Amino acid sequence: MGSHRNSVLEGNVLVGQSGGPTCVINQSLVGVVEEALKHKHLSRVYGAIHGIQGVLKQELIDLGAESRATLRAVRATPSAALGSVRKKPEPKECEHIFRILQAHNIRYFFYIGGNDSAETAHIINSLAQASSYELRVGHIPKTIDNDLLVTDHCPGYGSAARFVALAHMGDNLDNRALRGVKINVIMGRHAGFLTAAAGLGRKDKDDGPHLIYVPEVAFSLEKFCEDVDATLKKWGRCIVAVSEGIADKDHNPIFTTGERDSHGNVQLSGTGALGDYLADIVKTRLKVARVRADTFGYLQRSFATIVSPVDAKEASEVARFGVRALARGEAESGSVAIRRLSKKGKYASEFFMTDLMNVAKKTRSLDSKFIAPAGNDITQAFKRYALPLVGNLPELGRLKGKRVPKKSVPEPQGQELPAI
Amino acid sequence: MGSHRNSVLEGNVLVGQSGGPTCVINQSLVGVVEEALKHKHLSRVYGAIHGIQGVLKQELIDLGAESRATLRAVRATPSAALGSVRKKPEPKECEHIFRILQAHNIRYFFYIGGNDSAETAHIINSLAQASSYELRVGHIPKTIDNDLLVTDHCPGYGSAARFVALAHMGDNLDNRALRGVKINVIMGRHAGFLTAAAGLGRKDKDDGPHLIYVPEVAFSLEKFCEDVDATLKKWGRCIVAVSEGIADKDHNPIFTTGERDSHGNVQLSGTGALGDYLADIVKTRLKVARVRADTFGYLQRSFATIVSPVDAKEASEVARFGVRALARGEAESGSVAIRRLSKKGKYASEFFMTDLMNVAKKTRSLDSKFIAPAGNDITQAFKRYALPLVGNLPELGRLKGKRVPKKSVPEPQGQELPAI
Repeated sequence: MGSHRNSVLEGNVLVGQSGGPTCVINQSLVGVVEEALKHKHLSRVYGAIHGIQGVLKQELIDLGAESRATLRAVRATPSAALGSVRKKPEPKECEHIFRILQAHNIRYFFYIGGNDSAETAHIINSLAQASSYELRVGHIPKTIDNDLLVTDHCPGYGSAARFVALAHMGDNLDNRALRGVKINVIMGRHAGFLTAAAGLGRKDKDDGPHLIYVPEVAFSLEKFCEDVDATLKKWGRCIVAVSEGIADKDHNPIFTTGERDSHGNVQLSGTGALGDYLADIVKTRLKVARVRADTFGYLQRSFATIVSPVDAKEASEVARFGVRALARGEAESGSVAIRRLSKKGKYASEFFMTDLMNVAKKTRSLDSKFIAPAGNDITQAFKRYALPLVGNLPELGRLKGKRVPKKSVPEPQGQELPAI
Repeated sequence: MGSHRNSVLEGNVLVGQSGGPTCVINQSLVGVVEEALKHKHLSRVYGAIHGIQGVLKQELIDLGAESRATLRAVRATPSAALGSVRKKPEPKECEHIFRILQAHNIRYFFYIGGNDSAETAHIINSLAQASSYELRVGHIPKTIDNDLLVTDHCPGYGSAARFVALAHMGDNLDNRALRGVKINVIMGRHAGFLTAAAGLGRKDKDDGPHLIYVPEVAFSLEKFCEDVDATLKKWGRCIVAVSEGIADKDHNPIFTTGERDSHGNVQLSGTGALGDYLADIVKTRLKVARVRADTFGYLQRSFATIVSPVDAKEASEVARFGVRALARGEAESGSVAIRRLSKKGKYASEFFMTDLMNVAKKTRSLDSKFIAPAGNDITQAFKRYALPLVGNLPELGRLKGKRVPKKSVPEPQGQELPAI
């Protein structure tokens, strides 16, 4: 956070969006704009097109020129309205960035993103401190992976988790209607928070997903097959929620395309290969006739209309809080974090600043108390943690199904009734 | 429809659900139950667990014993509450079915499903006519594929189409934020109605999907690559919506697992293989770095909370209409169809009965007036047809993006700025 000097620094504001988009990242963008416009010593509010890449190319727009109606519509729109980027600036690029910030008298830089974006913000902030250029740098947290340190949870997670929970509530009933094994592959490179959300909508004891595998637990194909087999014997069907990032005991991913971004992250999403591979193993080893795999893919982070109200509100408020803290000189740099407050069992939260380097690059894993001892399910503690973040889930109905007594009818001759 | 005898036939009612579930198939189920309970000569209302399979095994439940609260909750719940089945009864099984219907004094049989279910209803009805057993058989239409003949459209389609439209509205912005080629594979074995819905949410001229391929148009990999290349040159990105059922000019599917159900349909869903195959071709032939494929899979037909209000209403009303027509003796058998009415540009519809054999087994294709001449997009006529069925789509916002004039800043030495 640096020293608190209570100095008032005059100049322009620049905001960028980075990393994978979410359904509420524009809440944070509009939050930055609206809050910045309230502070007179923050003269103009610029947006960088495609994050740090737009800074390098001087592709900047004047966000103060947007109408209230546009900002209101953009706030409720999924994905990054400024465009996003997966890019870690090279040292030489950082020098160039400073020249551009200086030329436009940018004194406040807000970067909305995950831990890679916090790293970028940290690099720029360190160079600003080392040089004579006075700059305030704020990181506004955003990630569907929910894998940032310090903060209780990350804006973007609640809505993506809501999508995953809703998808499984419907898919559970689909699988109940037409039985078989269903494998759902969910985003999450290292952290299992999003995959764990698959279980949030379960109500009846036979509700799926029946098995949940997260990257935090070493994945064994043998154990997986045993688990599926046991579930089939118990319920006559099986839904598996599995993270795209599952890896074996030696940390080798079960599946990877080999593609990497400039932060060194491997590509896992955007292919159905892991799901198809697991489905094939169930078909072959367990001789199950009906096995299907769906890979939820990019819909998890961009689907319109599934936003969690708490998530939307917090995504806006973390941005406003960050702008206020830097504008008032309460901090010279930092990442905004969320602290959960319990008020008579009702969910509430407040915000605070933490050092950029506390968040940069590091990742949080799914807490061990959230993973069932058998390693193939979530716990009640996870439900208590995550349910307030996703918003109310719909109440689905189930027939009581009072059986009609069978009548005596001669069985058909010479043929066996096939299994469903 | 048979002769109109205005006869009042007393006895019990049996209803079953068949084929792939939808988000509104329970509207039809509850519609049958509530309407049947109004007619005194329809004594009891039974439900068959897993369709015709439950009849064969005498797994029947008493739907009249369900509470109003349960029925209200079930109506708003996706997937088939009775369980579903993909099964065409063998002739010997049909004989057994009759013995069971007779034993339970079933005189009204309603089967909610697509053209395969209409075929099953037709077989049972034909055998009833050939025998001395007096039975009324009604087919209640349901299919996300929208591929039934006679009817203007099918209950279940509007909600699935809404999911596909909403998914593309978000995915278009995701792809705009992080550019590349994105391929989305959509359900639809022979008919392109659901895939065509991908384009319903487009507003700005660069909005995706930029290319839409349906099974009705012969698919050529060469033409596909040319189309993607041209789109990349025009917009710097490309979203492709493609039906799982696309086939080449000799009607060979581009991809199939080889699995078939008892109606002879090949399995196409539940695997990401087609999407991965097309993504690989774009990567290799066009040398595009960022190519992703998502296969929407079963979420399209089961996702909670995306129901189209018109679809939900019509799914209930076709069922009520069918029960009324048979209960009053206005028809002895038939499939309920929807006729579209234009009232001063406002959407309205009415219902009528058509012969089971008009609907059984046959499939409707996407009308040629709905496919753009180039074979890679939809037309305005399709939008006019489909938009009233999916309900209001959200208004998404886009920044006006007034550019900040560039300042003179020396370019960094000895390095080229990388492309986004």
